[in-house]
Amino acid sequence: GTLNKVLIFPSEVACVEYLFRPNSVGLCFCGLPHGVETSFSHLLRYILSASSSLDLCLFSFSNIDLKRAVILLHEKGVTIRVVVDKDYSAITGSQIGCLRKAGIRVRCEADYVHMHHKFAVVDSRLLITGSLNWTLTAVQCNRENVIITEEAELVQPFIKEFERLWVLNDPA
Amino acid sequence: GTLNKVLIFPSEVACVEYLFRPNSVGLCFCGLPHGVETSFSHLLRYILSASSSLDLCLFSFSNIDLKRAVILLHEKGVTIRVVVDKDYSAITGSQIGCLRKAGIRVRCEADYVHMHHKFAVVDSRLLITGSLNWTLTAVQCNRENVIITEEAELVQPFIKEFERLWVLNDPA
Ligand SMILES: [Zn+2]
Ligand SMILES: [Zn+2]
Repeated sequence: GTLNKVLIFPSEVACVEYLFRPNSVGLCFCGLPHGVETSFSHLLRYILSASSSLDLCLFSFSNIDLKRAVILLHEKGVTIRVVVDKDYSAITGSQIGCLRKAGIRVRCEADYVHMHHKFAVVDSRLLITGSLNWTLTAVQCNRENVIITEEAELVQPFIKEFERLWVLNDPA
Repeated sequence: GTLNKVLIFPSEVACVEYLFRPNSVGLCFCGLPHGVETSFSHLLRYILSASSSLDLCLFSFSNIDLKRAVILLHEKGVTIRVVVDKDYSAITGSQIGCLRKAGIRVRCEADYVHMHHKFAVVDSRLLITGSLNWTLTAVQCNRENVIITEEAELVQPFIKEFERLWVLNDPA
């Protein structure tokens, strides 16, 4: 059937190194629990499942592991596009500069008070959206929700909104 | 089929008086556009569709029209339960005190950094969730999304989360 899943946060804290380096299993001595699936490891898995494209529309993006996932996909040849809130893209800890340095296309939305979306579309097929900003506090400290769905009636309007904001904020 | 809908904000600004007083159609001289359906009027309609229960789990709640909708349902005999973030329940413009005065049960969540959810469950069947806080800025000024769904795989985890937070924050 169509994938429909809900992740509830805060997530337990556990090592996610194996998601980035599968060969590291059993060889990581970071001190965090290993071999534990959490809301955050599931979130990372869905993002890392991208094989052709990843569109991100985010209010804030400071989470290091999420940045690492996006950079890894970029290095694998996945087409990444990012739309972010202009004010929040420049705050302390923001990973937006880092994405740009890696060659990822980022556009800033400044028209409204806040670009408050927090969604990702994987391979134009899978929607990841909810209350969760891409920060460490949101993942580990807040009560939050993330919906994962392939339901076309839900995914399509987000794809449409992304394309609209992408064109609207074309700096050219 | 199962209801699945996405509302995109900011909403156009239009009069919503007819949703509260159907007899007022044609008799309102507020100066706003009339007879216009907007993202916000759709959101209000879904909330006002509650016939037996409305569970709210909200980070912030200052929007006057949304408060009016909740009070109207309460007066009609719909069972309302509200879980809110403790810090934000007391800020200027918060309608939480007003809900309490009307006799609606409100519980404050103070355990984590933020209770950042922003969802409603109507009649234990319809889920309303997204990036949108229940404020005027979110509705009229921000880029936001709201998902409306009856998909059981999505609705059930939110019901479970609500019941968990409701019990957890029982002051008794
Ligand atoms: Zn480790
Ligand atoms: Zn009017």
